[in-house]
Amino acid sequence: MSAVDLNSDLGEGFGSWTLGDDDALLEIVTSANVACGFHASDATIMRRVCERAVQHDVAIGAQVGYRDLPGFGRRFIDVDPHELTQDVIYQLGALDGFARVAGSRVRYLKPHGALYNAIVTHEEQAAAVVAAVVDYDRTLPVLGLPGSAWLRLAGEAGLTTVAEAFADRAYTPDGALVSRRLPGAVLHDVEEIAARCVAMATGQPVLDVDGGELSLQPGSICVHGDTPGAVQIARRVRDALAGAGLSLAPFS
Amino acid sequence: MSAVDLNSDLGEGFGSWTLGDDDALLEIVTSANVACGFHASDATIMRRVCERAVQHDVAIGAQVGYRDLPGFGRRFIDVDPHELTQDVIYQLGALDGFARVAGSRVRYLKPHGALYNAIVTHEEQAAAVVAAVVDYDRTLPVLGLPGSAWLRLAGEAGLTTVAEAFADRAYTPDGALVSRRLPGAVLHDVEEIAARCVAMATGQPVLDVDGGELSLQPGSICVHGDTPGAVQIARRVRDALAGAGLSLAPFS
Amino acid sequence: MSAVDLNSDLGEGFGSWTLGDDDALLEIVTSANVACGFHASDATIMRRVCERAVQHDVAIGAQVGYRDLPGFGRRFIDVDPHELTQDVIYQLGALDGFARVAGSRVRYLKPHGALYNAIVTHEEQAAAVVAAVVDYDRTLPVLGLPGSAWLRLAGEAGLTTVAEAFADRAYTPDGALVSRRLPGAVLHDVEEIAARCVAMATGQPVLDVDGGELSLQPGSICVHGDTPGAVQIARRVRDALAGAGLSLAPFS
Amino acid sequence: MSAVDLNSDLGEGFGSWTLGDDDALLEIVTSANVACGFHASDATIMRRVCERAVQHDVAIGAQVGYRDLPGFGRRFIDVDPHELTQDVIYQLGALDGFARVAGSRVRYLKPHGALYNAIVTHEEQAAAVVAAVVDYDRTLPVLGLPGSAWLRLAGEAGLTTVAEAFADRAYTPDGALVSRRLPGAVLHDVEEIAARCVAMATGQPVLDVDGGELSLQPGSICVHGDTPGAVQIARRVRDALAGAGLSLAPFS
Repeated sequence: MSAVDLNSDLGEGFGSWTLGDDDALLEIVTSANVACGFHASDATIMRRVCERAVQHDVAIGAQVGYRDLPGFGRRFIDVDPHELTQDVIYQLGALDGFARVAGSRVRYLKPHGALYNAIVTHEEQAAAVVAAVVDYDRTLPVLGLPGSAWLRLAGEAGLTTVAEAFADRAYTPDGALVSRRLPGAVLHDVEEIAARCVAMATGQPVLDVDGGELSLQPGSICVHGDTPGAVQIARRVRDALAGAGLSLAPFS
Repeated sequence: MSAVDLNSDLGEGFGSWTLGDDDALLEIVTSANVACGFHASDATIMRRVCERAVQHDVAIGAQVGYRDLPGFGRRFIDVDPHELTQDVIYQLGALDGFARVAGSRVRYLKPHGALYNAIVTHEEQAAAVVAAVVDYDRTLPVLGLPGSAWLRLAGEAGLTTVAEAFADRAYTPDGALVSRRLPGAVLHDVEEIAARCVAMATGQPVLDVDGGELSLQPGSICVHGDTPGAVQIARRVRDALAGAGLSLAPFS
Repeated sequence: MSAVDLNSDLGEGFGSWTLGDDDALLEIVTSANVACGFHASDATIMRRVCERAVQHDVAIGAQVGYRDLPGFGRRFIDVDPHELTQDVIYQLGALDGFARVAGSRVRYLKPHGALYNAIVTHEEQAAAVVAAVVDYDRTLPVLGLPGSAWLRLAGEAGLTTVAEAFADRAYTPDGALVSRRLPGAVLHDVEEIAARCVAMATGQPVLDVDGGELSLQPGSICVHGDTPGAVQIARRVRDALAGAGLSLAPFS
Repeated sequence: MSAVDLNSDLGEGFGSWTLGDDDALLEIVTSANVACGFHASDATIMRRVCERAVQHDVAIGAQVGYRDLPGFGRRFIDVDPHELTQDVIYQLGALDGFARVAGSRVRYLKPHGALYNAIVTHEEQAAAVVAAVVDYDRTLPVLGLPGSAWLRLAGEAGLTTVAEAFADRAYTPDGALVSRRLPGAVLHDVEEIAARCVAMATGQPVLDVDGGELSLQPGSICVHGDTPGAVQIARRVRDALAGAGLSLAPFS
């Protein structure tokens, strides 16, 4: 029986503000991308999410972002690469503290938001994040977009790279994401999404945006959880994967 | 030959702003209380201080504070104790990341500023900081004021406690610090300060503010470094201790 | 026909995070206590709330707080009074900019959270907030708890003071709020709350927590809006006041 | 007798951290670009600088920047233009509060750091800053680089634009600044700098980096003050301008 990993962003509240349904998602996903306090989250949230993740056998990953709480890490910041490396190590260390207190460790790293998007092509920032992992713990797997400068440079540096696919996003024939500014970029039909995830996880092709067949063989599938509907989709994806005889387990 | 430890606050700049002379102090002290980004410091500063500390065989300690960059951690904040515990773990983890990257570890914890002062008497906050160390690593020594709730509760929790004395502060006959609001609270004569430190480190009494003899036998002596004059005093203290045949080495 | 004012806290989101239902409340209340970016809110939220407030003829008040986004201004901070005065002026000026852009002005000030509570008794901080209003615009009315140091010192300084009552809080026989730590401190019965508000607004007594009669004659009644249920209560209060023949209008 | 304006960045400390010598510069310049708390400064600093500026008849300008204290506003942030407009209004309003308390008003606006550089060419962000001034007070002059999108769009929107020159920077033959990455970009000779400023202020040409003549006729000359040497240069520039029979006065 082959295994599949579902990852999702968690711990993205801040202080009195909440975002998403962490508790619901921790019963669905197998890998939790936990925000580390730079674009979202704080110490109290991180403690709680780490403890609950361990209780549910969910792997804890560091969801690192730009230092930008007002912008939720969704705005590109032209950070000096040397400083970006340190900002990533800071986040890794902080989350790792809570993971260890909860009886686990940070088991992978996934960049967030504008940083995730930037290092698809921004070589200097991609290299800066790679340097952070190399400096901190070169056994730590990194998660990202297939074909990105990020995963390429991580691989060249000897890191374990894991490519992810998105459960609810349309793809172009060459495997890129359809821009969110175009119609049809985001899928909404629960059953279609679930079926595509089963296909991805079992080596079957999915339809690209032009109707052609596209083979995505992700090491992890990303589901969202920041709306009530998103949680329902994530739950249906999990059920469909289990129903197809796949076991759900962290990739890390 | 007995050994003595000198500790000082380091890494207290923020972004483009500097404070104190970290490089000078790292050639003087044996224990560096490194700010962790909550009241001062940032990732780039922490990386640099940790690397230089390791180069100079200076022990890295976590100088944890309230989350208050605008107030430099000098204002009491009535933080919920559970949240304070997590804030301390966050700072410990973040600094430990840089310490490990530099080839060392965080080797002790010392609270900063208003938190330092609060937990002399504030039982709930003192217990919250103790809980953070217990949760994170109960082998980590903690530094503080003799007679404080902080060291008492830490000791009761099984932590290793180290009492510090201040090189340039006057003491009352019962061993408390003379309030900074009173004249004579802070000593300025370099030779007097140096001589007092030698006395403290060799088990000799020093004069209290009333002229009586007071025995302080600190596990570490705190020197300041945030002014040019302070660095000169710290250097003179070190020279005097060495001249008295004492070896300088981290307590931890 | 006499008039009554309903005030509520608005604009308390931050960046991507939301809190409460500003749009719903702006159709209910007559005075909006708009957060100014220190404990909650940001420039984009303040712009939007000010514009909508003006559209609905809702008076814009400055809801000033401690500089503490992570704690939502709910933690006492021992700020130096001189600095607190400036922090309040900063918030007043920032909000006034948006109020003027929207075609209005800041028309009153109401402290938030831990600052609100502190200056019931903390004379120095109360005086510091009074000083801010005196410096900024001594014609600005201030809102607060009857019997507080805050309103007393404001009155002594020549400011216009307005005492508020809380729609959903129980009172002791001497007119103080029942502590939230005690059972029955917060009322939940919609009709009871609405009836009490009508009584308050028409000069009738309400029952105190011991069943005695208590005369509250507030210049404004505070309703909450940070939960769906709270919005419903606020709407019912408004309807009940209107049904009793009262006109709803800003006190300022 | 013609008049010339000297502007400089002031109020760029933060909390316990200082930067530059505000007091010295306020005796030299005629226009103070006061940081507004987004990239530097805080309420207490702003209050103090505004009061001293008024005492010295120095015009108060809003030095607006990206919301980025850790980066001192020196990193481009891809802020949504609508949000950037509000961020600028927020800063304008906050500073205007202190200017009014000090008996004056904000009399112009000058962008800082990465924002200054971005809107030389970034049309959307330039338009966003223009929109902020239009919304806030369309009589407010704006200061910037000649030839920038910023001044062009400001002029098209009907704002009063003032082009500045830099006392200590080399220019290309077409009037652009020589990049700081190239040798000779920054001038260090005090007398040369002073002589160039006199030339600029009296309509005489200065030498460009290739030795040709270049006519700069700035409405204001920018001097720096964040190092002891810079203050000396600024003072010499002022003396040279006065010695050439020019009066020093705010452009605004």
